[in-house]
Amino acid sequence: MDIQNLVRELKIQNKSKIVMLVADGLGGLPVEQGGPTELEAAKTPNLDALAKHGTQGLLYPIAQGITPGSGPGHLGLFGYDPIKHLIGRGALEATGVGFKLGPKDVAIRCNFCTLDAEGNISDRRAGRIPSEESAPLAIKLRKVSIPGVEIFVEPVKEHRFVVVFRGEGLGGNVADTDPQKTGVPPLDPVAHDGPSHRTADIAKEFYKQAVKILAGQPKANGLTMRGFSAAPVIDSYEQVYGLKAAAIAVYPMYKGLAQLVGMTVVGTPGSLMEEVKVLEQAWNDYDFFFVHFKYTDSRGEDGNFEEKVRMIEQLDAVVPHIVALKPSVLIITGDHSTPARLASHSWHPVPTLLVSETCRPDGLTAFGEKQAMNGGLGHFPAVNLMPLALAHAERLGKYGA
Amino acid sequence: MDIQNLVRELKIQNKSKIVMLVADGLGGLPVEQGGPTELEAAKTPNLDALAKHGTQGLLYPIAQGITPGSGPGHLGLFGYDPIKHLIGRGALEATGVGFKLGPKDVAIRCNFCTLDAEGNISDRRAGRIPSEESAPLAIKLRKVSIPGVEIFVEPVKEHRFVVVFRGEGLGGNVADTDPQKTGVPPLDPVAHDGPSHRTADIAKEFYKQAVKILAGQPKANGLTMRGFSAAPVIDSYEQVYGLKAAAIAVYPMYKGLAQLVGMTVVGTPGSLMEEVKVLEQAWNDYDFFFVHFKYTDSRGEDGNFEEKVRMIEQLDAVVPHIVALKPSVLIITGDHSTPARLASHSWHPVPTLLVSETCRPDGLTAFGEKQAMNGGLGHFPAVNLMPLALAHAERLGKYGA
Repeated sequence: MDIQNLVRELKIQNKSKIVMLVADGLGGLPVEQGGPTELEAAKTPNLDALAKHGTQGLLYPIAQGITPGSGPGHLGLFGYDPIKHLIGRGALEATGVGFKLGPKDVAIRCNFCTLDAEGNISDRRAGRIPSEESAPLAIKLRKVSIPGVEIFVEPVKEHRFVVVFRGEGLGGNVADTDPQKTGVPPLDPVAHDGPSHRTADIAKEFYKQAVKILAGQPKANGLTMRGFSAAPVIDSYEQVYGLKAAAIAVYPMYKGLAQLVGMTVVGTPGSLMEEVKVLEQAWNDYDFFFVHFKYTDSRGEDGNFEEKVRMIEQLDAVVPHIVALKPSVLIITGDHSTPARLASHSWHPVPTLLVSETCRPDGLTAFGEKQAMNGGLGHFPAVNLMPLALAHAERLGKYGA
Repeated sequence: MDIQNLVRELKIQNKSKIVMLVADGLGGLPVEQGGPTELEAAKTPNLDALAKHGTQGLLYPIAQGITPGSGPGHLGLFGYDPIKHLIGRGALEATGVGFKLGPKDVAIRCNFCTLDAEGNISDRRAGRIPSEESAPLAIKLRKVSIPGVEIFVEPVKEHRFVVVFRGEGLGGNVADTDPQKTGVPPLDPVAHDGPSHRTADIAKEFYKQAVKILAGQPKANGLTMRGFSAAPVIDSYEQVYGLKAAAIAVYPMYKGLAQLVGMTVVGTPGSLMEEVKVLEQAWNDYDFFFVHFKYTDSRGEDGNFEEKVRMIEQLDAVVPHIVALKPSVLIITGDHSTPARLASHSWHPVPTLLVSETCRPDGLTAFGEKQAMNGGLGHFPAVNLMPLALAHAERLGKYGA
């Protein structure tokens, strides 16, 4: 039995509130030997004040040495084993544009491509057609009609779009049609198991009709399909934890990930301060709040140490507003590290702070990587975070007599 | 899916080099309350300099409280779950004399014994016959010939030798023939599963011919067979990690263990300094280097604290030669602890230091048990070491999007 199943059996209802503030890519590295990390360099008086009452630790999103994408990174924080619950690439792409996948859906990442007169691919990305040109074409493809299946087409960016087939008994195990080279036509979609034969047939018919709709387009007159994937089957926050959960995020990807675990997306904030406003407004209606802050990761990905520091300071500035709501449990963490020095996600563990009345103080006086290294939570896997949150919220009963 | 399977999917090829320097039995204990361990007592300016740039942790070879033998200890360091991949005693004995086991092999640990006129065992160890007398007898047994099976006999030490049967479809599940007492004859080899019946028949025939060859010997006129075991089925470093791996060791046992995971044994060094020479010569030909230093364990087993300290200082002295090669990742660890105070392997975790450009510094300034206890790698299972090494060598892609 994994820890989540145990938690499910022990859960208790009460009126406590839990806030999980996820600073995307929070963890960092020093730029030079002996220097501070981004979080250590930032002036964070509010987080440091919380550190005195709370308990810190280093969180491993997946395992030592493993660098997570946003999908597995968040699933781990939400308490779902990110290795067991892999989100297929099509499903993640659909989630990323805010499409709410249902249990009868198969999602596919599609690329517009250019076909020559013989029907061979001459450009696998349709000349990286700009979004302004490609989005209307993607929307045009909504005209495709196949009996017995509902079809959704969503533009993504440049040559990319998403197709979702919704119907009974559709398998997600279909091979990519992108031949990964030019001078040949797109491959036929090939099913790799029984329930996926129907999906492959639908994909074939979709392609046929789509190419007719795109005929005459100078760049995007063809398409390839990749990452076929059924919606992941994940029990909801309500089922697992008994929590009515709200997700507050600016970007569609994180709203989508939260929806996968049954959170309700609330508000349409455009900034961190607006996210806090949404939190205040929704405070009485939910038990659990996932608040996502994107820009720590963005500036890390840019390789911009100073700007990541500034983003952490922005985060620090809103903390008093959250504290003023008096959550039973407040967690500050990240879905992975994004050190500006590496300008990418990394495997380094994420400094994590949990604050509640029932914390055993660990004597630390600031929030940062070196502090968290010696904190009361130790070095722990992400999937342990939700049980800890529930325990401090007094939402878990005793195991055994 | 275990972490090794995940690593297998995420692996990337590049030109980085990883060195794993294994000081056998490295971890220790103070001789008296408040005193230093062997590693803490040793003057190790070079390791301490590395500690400033690297990250330390305490490594559990198997699990808390479990004392490993050399086999499981090394398998864990190599990233193979040492509980799942148990090396049978016969296979380990064969490996220990440098015999390269293949997939069709069954290895058996044998003891010479003394039989009385009635064919009953009068001495289970043939009077602990010295190696000079027993080795030629073991070699004489190579005359045994059985159709359809290739037979190898290798002397070990005193009354011990190894027999390997090589043939199609041989099972390793045969009971020991050592009755564990005198006054009775050796037991018949009894098969415990289908494929092992043929092995048992071969063993019976081997015994019959061997006793004829040994007839008239004053001490070693009989033999018992124990620890029948098929070669462990272990995927290679190349398959799992995409690493071309070299093993540099003085003792056959460690060469054998490295060969089990597909490393190539390079050179025939007789000392640590010669091992470093081999490392330098092989540098361009491999991605990964396992360098084994035996004498930290030997002096620990002797219960000689001062000499173990001296061995650690010898180890420290060669570190600059390794650093000069500029490995992308340098790891210093041990396969288990061997505290001189206990004069044996122990369950205590092993101080481990990982040095690379992408380490998050942990503020430590020396390499030792107390330091490692508070290091950035935390307290972690041995099987996490290879994923960490690969991550720091930038040989692992992102998990999920």
